[in-house]
Amino acid sequence: MSDILQQLGDILEERKGAEADSSYVASLYHKGLNKILEKVGEEATETILAAKDAETSGDNKEVIYETADLWFHSLVALAKLGERPEAVINELARRFNMSGLEEKASRTKK
Amino acid sequence: MSDILQQLGDILEERKGAEADSSYVASLYHKGLNKILEKVGEEATETILAAKDAETSGDNKEVIYETADLWFHSLVALAKLGERPEAVINELARRFNMSGLEEKASRTKK
Amino acid sequence: MSDILQQLGDILEERKGAEADSSYVASLYHKGLNKILEKVGEEATETILAAKDAETSGDNKEVIYETADLWFHSLVALAKLGERPEAVINELARRFNMSGLEEKASRTKK
Amino acid sequence: MSDILQQLGDILEERKGAEADSSYVASLYHKGLNKILEKVGEEATETILAAKDAETSGDNKEVIYETADLWFHSLVALAKLGERPEAVINELARRFNMSGLEEKASRTKK
Repeated sequence: MSDILQQLGDILEERKGAEADSSYVASLYHKGLNKILEKVGEEATETILAAKDAETSGDNKEVIYETADLWFHSLVALAKLGERPEAVINELARRFNMSGLEEKASRTKK
Repeated sequence: MSDILQQLGDILEERKGAEADSSYVASLYHKGLNKILEKVGEEATETILAAKDAETSGDNKEVIYETADLWFHSLVALAKLGERPEAVINELARRFNMSGLEEKASRTKK
Repeated sequence: MSDILQQLGDILEERKGAEADSSYVASLYHKGLNKILEKVGEEATETILAAKDAETSGDNKEVIYETADLWFHSLVALAKLGERPEAVINELARRFNMSGLEEKASRTKK
Repeated sequence: MSDILQQLGDILEERKGAEADSSYVASLYHKGLNKILEKVGEEATETILAAKDAETSGDNKEVIYETADLWFHSLVALAKLGERPEAVINELARRFNMSGLEEKASRTKK
């Protein structure tokens, strides 16, 4: 999984310089932080609604999909603020006394 | 990072049978899905507020912390519904044409 | 103000039988409760963001607008569930020991 | 209803100068705008969850209660920013071409 979040971090980084109409992520960067945070709020609500529906139906497909959307948009917000996915993972690792992960930037420096 | 989310998935799984007062996660399971989803909503709001403050202050520490809280509680909700972190990561991988990751259960079977 | 919320309650009631494309409210009813609740979540986020911006700018126009949107969509949700604005106002009155207000239905019966 | 929201506006105004421990509203003012907005986010989530449960159970008591909480905390946020409930009601009136309501401040000047 590490590689997937790191790859996603790379993609979010790459799209920073791009034209607004070149990708969905590029369009979000151009719209600015408020618009990205509106999406975080929307996806949180959709995750909550999908979880309630999963509780009734027993079908988790939608709630997995919406959680991925929520994580994705929270990573776009962090990227806009200059942070990578590793920062979130390291914070989670710290809380559970797991050994974290070096930021890719420093890793590649070696 | 993969290992960290997988380890976290193991921890969330282990605490399912535990007494309500044995840990924070166990207490959340006992309170039920609504209480867990309230926490998802709360942490989403705190992430948004922290991002706005980071935009002004340039200090990202709080927004990283709140995003970790948001991811964590969304994983508790998924665990309550019977899903592991791998499901979210695989959904993200699928969207970006990255190769996903087998569920730990099946991985360990080999 | 009472009259305005009661009039709004009447409007929300009237549009219940209408075709989906006849008005925004009618289209929300047809999309169902989840879609209405997504709007409640969105408007809550927009209210929060507008309040943070008002704190910095001193301009409250946007936060008033978004709060009206939030109240409006929460009234559409209540209308979908069969409740009128009076129910919210009476609950607020009850908390502050103010005398409430009869439901319009019963009022007009007299 | 007008009178109830105006009375509530008066109460929120009065408690502005009060000691933090004199009332719940006073304690919220002292904690600051972020804490008030966290409550708005929490109450929005609780409204959404209560609406989903009402949809299943047919019992609207909880969703009315949570909507009142949501409106109340959004009025505390507006009061913190210097606005009264009349501002929200007038914005709603404007949208539906209803005649609005003068701010109490100007009303009492006459």
